[in-house]
Formats: sequence, C-alpha cells, structure tokens
Amino acid sequence: MALLFHATGWSQEEWLEELAHQAPWLDVRTAENIGDPEDITHALVWKPPAGLLAGLPSLRLIISAGAGVDHLLSRPDLPDVPISRVVDPDLTRRMGEYVAQQALMHLRRQRDFDACQRRREWCSDIVPPTAPEVTCGIMGLGALGAESARLLRLLGFRVAGWARTRRYIEGMRCHAGPEELNEFLAATDILVCLLPLTPETEGILNTDLFRRLRQDGPLGGPVLINAGRGRLQKDADILAALEEGTLKAVSLDVFETEPLPQESPLWNHPAVTVTPHVAAVSSPRAVVAYALRQIARMERGEPPENLVERQRGY
Amino acid sequence: MALLFHATGWSQEEWLEELAHQAPWLDVRTAENIGDPEDITHALVWKPPAGLLAGLPSLRLIISAGAGVDHLLSRPDLPDVPISRVVDPDLTRRMGEYVAQQALMHLRRQRDFDACQRRREWCSDIVPPTAPEVTCGIMGLGALGAESARLLRLLGFRVAGWARTRRYIEGMRCHAGPEELNEFLAATDILVCLLPLTPETEGILNTDLFRRLRQDGPLGGPVLINAGRGRLQKDADILAALEEGTLKAVSLDVFETEPLPQESPLWNHPAVTVTPHVAAVSSPRAVVAYALRQIARMERGEPPENLVERQRGY
Repeated sequence: MALLFHATGWSQEEWLEELAHQAPWLDVRTAENIGDPEDITHALVWKPPAGLLAGLPSLRLIISAGAGVDHLLSRPDLPDVPISRVVDPDLTRRMGEYVAQQALMHLRRQRDFDACQRRREWCSDIVPPTAPEVTCGIMGLGALGAESARLLRLLGFRVAGWARTRRYIEGMRCHAGPEELNEFLAATDILVCLLPLTPETEGILNTDLFRRLRQDGPLGGPVLINAGRGRLQKDADILAALEEGTLKAVSLDVFETEPLPQESPLWNHPAVTVTPHVAAVSSPRAVVAYALRQIARMERGEPPENLVERQRGY
Repeated sequence: MALLFHATGWSQEEWLEELAHQAPWLDVRTAENIGDPEDITHALVWKPPAGLLAGLPSLRLIISAGAGVDHLLSRPDLPDVPISRVVDPDLTRRMGEYVAQQALMHLRRQRDFDACQRRREWCSDIVPPTAPEVTCGIMGLGALGAESARLLRLLGFRVAGWARTRRYIEGMRCHAGPEELNEFLAATDILVCLLPLTPETEGILNTDLFRRLRQDGPLGGPVLINAGRGRLQKDADILAALEEGTLKAVSLDVFETEPLPQESPLWNHPAVTVTPHVAAVSSPRAVVAYALRQIARMERGEPPENLVERQRGY
C-alpha cells in the first residue's frame, strides 16, 4: 500500500511535510519518485498531469484535494476507480466568510464610499439598504452553498437557493432544475454562484441569465458573486452586462483563465472586485486529515465519504 | 400640547412630512414658526441651535433624534427636563451590518487584495485567517454594541466586550471599568468602538490605548473600527499609530471634525477606510414613530423609554 501525492501549482514541500507529520507510517510517493507503480493503492491529487493516474494497476481510490473535481473528470486518462472529493469544515467556513464579506460589501455600498474617499468627498447622502430588503440567491446547494446561505440568513438577508435537484434547507426556499430558474433569478438581488463545473453548468453565467435577474432591487441593479469555477462564467458577458447596466457590480474569485491575464479589462473595471481564487483555500492540514480518514475507512471495509458521481459531474 | 421639531443638517421637509403623515392631529412647530412658546410641551431635536430649548416654560420632554446625546448635554442652555434618546431597531440593525462588514473586510484582507488588483497582480499567496482565530473587542455595550457583538459571534469571531459598568451578555466575556481595560485590549485584534461621548470617554482612542492592543495577532496588527463619535478618537494619534505600526488598519465612520476636512491626511492613507458618518442613519419613519410612542407614554402617565442620566452622560 502506497499513496501517490501530486498537486499542480501548490507547494509540494508543505504537503509532503504534513503527510509525514500526520502519517509517519505511510509510504508516500510523488510523480518524480513513483517507484513500482504496482504499489500505488491511493492517490491524493490536484490537477494531476496527463498520464500520471493511468498506469497504476492497484489504484483503489482517488482523493481530490479540492472541493471541485472538474480537474479530474474532464480528462480521458482517468482510471475507473472511486473518487472522493474533500469536504472540509475549514474550507467550508472560509467560503462562507468570503461570501458574507462580499455580500455585505455590496449591501453597504462600500465601493461607492471608496470612490467618494478617493475624491475626498463627504457623501453622507448615500444611504445603504438593510439586509432584510435584499435577496441573496445561491446557485449550488452543496456544503459550500448551504454554509453561505446559513451565514447570509444569520446576517438578516432574505435567501433563496437553486440547484439541479430539489434540496431541503431550513428557513429558505430551494428552487430546482431549469424550469424553476427564471422564478429564482427574477427575485435575486445578489447572485452567489457555488455550482460545480459540469458540461451542464459551463458558461451558465452569461448575458441571457444576467438579464433575468431582478433589475429594480434596492442595490440599484443585480450583483454577481462567483466563487465557484471560472468556466461557469463568460468573462466577456460580465463586462458587457456591466456596460449595459444589467449587472451593477461583481465580485469574482475565479476566471475563465487563471491567473487572470494581465491584459484582462476585469482588473481595472470600477465595478469589479477581483480576488485571486482565494475564497476557500485547501489547508494541507485539513485535507491530509481528510485523505487519511478515507484510507482508514477503506481499510475497515467502509465506503469513502463524498464519492463523486461521474455521470452528474460532481 | 405642541411638538417643537428641529434637526440641524438634516432635511426638515422629510421629517415634517413624516410627522404629518404619522400624527396628523399633532401640533408641530419649528424654530422659524414656533408660535406661543408656552404651547411647546415636547421637543424632537438633533443639534438644536443655542437658545432654542431655553425659553419653553411648558417643556416636559426632549427626545434626541439620534442615539448619541452629546449634542445636547454639552450645552449650558439645556433645560432641566427628561431626555429620551432614540433606540430604534432599524438604526441598531444598520450599525450591526456596518460593523460586521468592516470586520469581515479586515479579516478577509480585502484592502490587500484591492492593492493587488490595482497592480494587476495575482496574489494567491495571501491566505486570510478565519474568524475563530480573531478576537473582536467591543467598547460600549449598549444596544449598538450588543447587536454588533451578536452578529460578530454568529459569524464565528471570538468576541469580548468592555464598558464602564459590568454588563452581562450571553456567550461573551464583558470587562468593566478602567481596571479591566488592559486585559481587554491585550486580547483584542479588532477593536470596535461604540462608546457614548462623555467627558470620561473623550479622546479615549489615543496612542496609549493603541499600544496596549494585541500586537502579534493573526491580522498582522490590530485594527480599529470607530462608528461611535469622532471626539472619542484623536485623528492625529491614529495616523501616528498607523505609521509606527501599532495599528494595521482602521475603518472610521466618525471624525474629530465632520465633514472630514479636505486637507485631512486620513482621506488618502492606504490603511484608512473613510465612511461619511453613515454607519447607522436615523430613519425619519422610525424616529418619528419612537417620538410619538414616548409622547403617548407620558400622556398615559408612564415614564418615557431610554431616559438619559445626565451625570453619567448618556
């Protein structure tokens, strides 16, 4: 039994140290030091390079080190073994804090006050609305969407949800499927997108959808917060919607291309808040603990948690 | 029976309309149209001009249209009648939302990400802490402080409080008096000031106090949020503390002089967020309803609510 670890774009060192710290008994291999491929029974990966997972005859479980699994499901060389995606309270909490912060920033018209401050102007005639006047609509009601909804409700916002299938969350109306999307959007002032990236959701945040949002709400126009995946959105459609006034402002943590290219007009648009895919980071400590728990469950003959259904894409 | 209304700096029209709307039977007078001074039994005022309240022999109650009463207590011409200061759920909610928004903005290092965005820099190595790692310390535990503490606790922050006298609020430690101030400050990462302005509290937010805040916390230094009164703080000491690193950042809704003078260096300091005394506005609808309720209580022989104790200053 051996664990193959690979995380593209993250510090390998920090993760290997965490594995050695939490599981000194575990035989950990890397892409550079894979040894006999027949030894590899588990893989903990983030965006593994093409081919890495293909030639492993003993592989029994793939653990995705992040909440999204689009980095795995899109590849043709993916072996037919179970995939467990991390659900981690620390990551979930961070996402809730990010969404709450951005929603409050738009509620309280912070960007308007920022502009006044730059002009040294005492804009005391700007009176922000209060949370009960504003409806946040959450697209995607998994662990991250549910936690965001919980915090927004505690802050006093009206909250509704939308997901592919019917979900039941206390204290909020949950819409389901394409046939209930219009109704959901028409009541939404702040759209929070935490959908998984699948063939069905790719590019869902587009001109057509933005035009269906509530246009006469208390924020002076609808606001978009996307902290899901960049390819859920059309960057160009967001810019066009801001120009035509269909969107008032956006907070984007993710982008079609990451890092966001230097030349992107999103960087210096006054109604765009850019954060560099940091809403919810995977902490090595939490993810390694999660991975070890899944390995232990399999050893005991129990199924791993949060198994991905390939046909639905998450 | 007649009500004298005067609010310096606010739109008289809007308030008079609201009074006419909610109490068409009420005889409302203004400074310009006061009629026989002997008729005036109640006064609803904000920063009344000197002398206005002095020659009213029938005056039985003064209602302060804002939460603070320093605009009244500081004047020598104040008649010796009860003063009721508005406590209004709408104003209280707005304050909680302001404090939650500013605290989350500092937690999530939004100003650092703003600076990255201006430089078109993908700063994905900035990892904000989470709320349970951060202690918010609330100075002033009246209605506004208690609501702010409640929201911050719901968001996951650790919260402590400090007030002149011992207060008991579920789920948080409340320090009392000068002898417990040091202990309170030494554990505080985000200091939220919602004290009333009194001779005891004037200038309390000064260099000496800033140096006693927790200096090695997870935000890289202590943060100040003042949404109480401007004269609680020394503007110059705030700038000096930012320079020496005793404060990491500040959010100020109030200032020693308001509007903040054009030439103030606070306007363009990168670690200062200026809002123009808008954290919690008095809505005419809510304040007028409050004033009418107090008048009705007196008519029924009940004491008005939220009576000011002059010797303590609030």
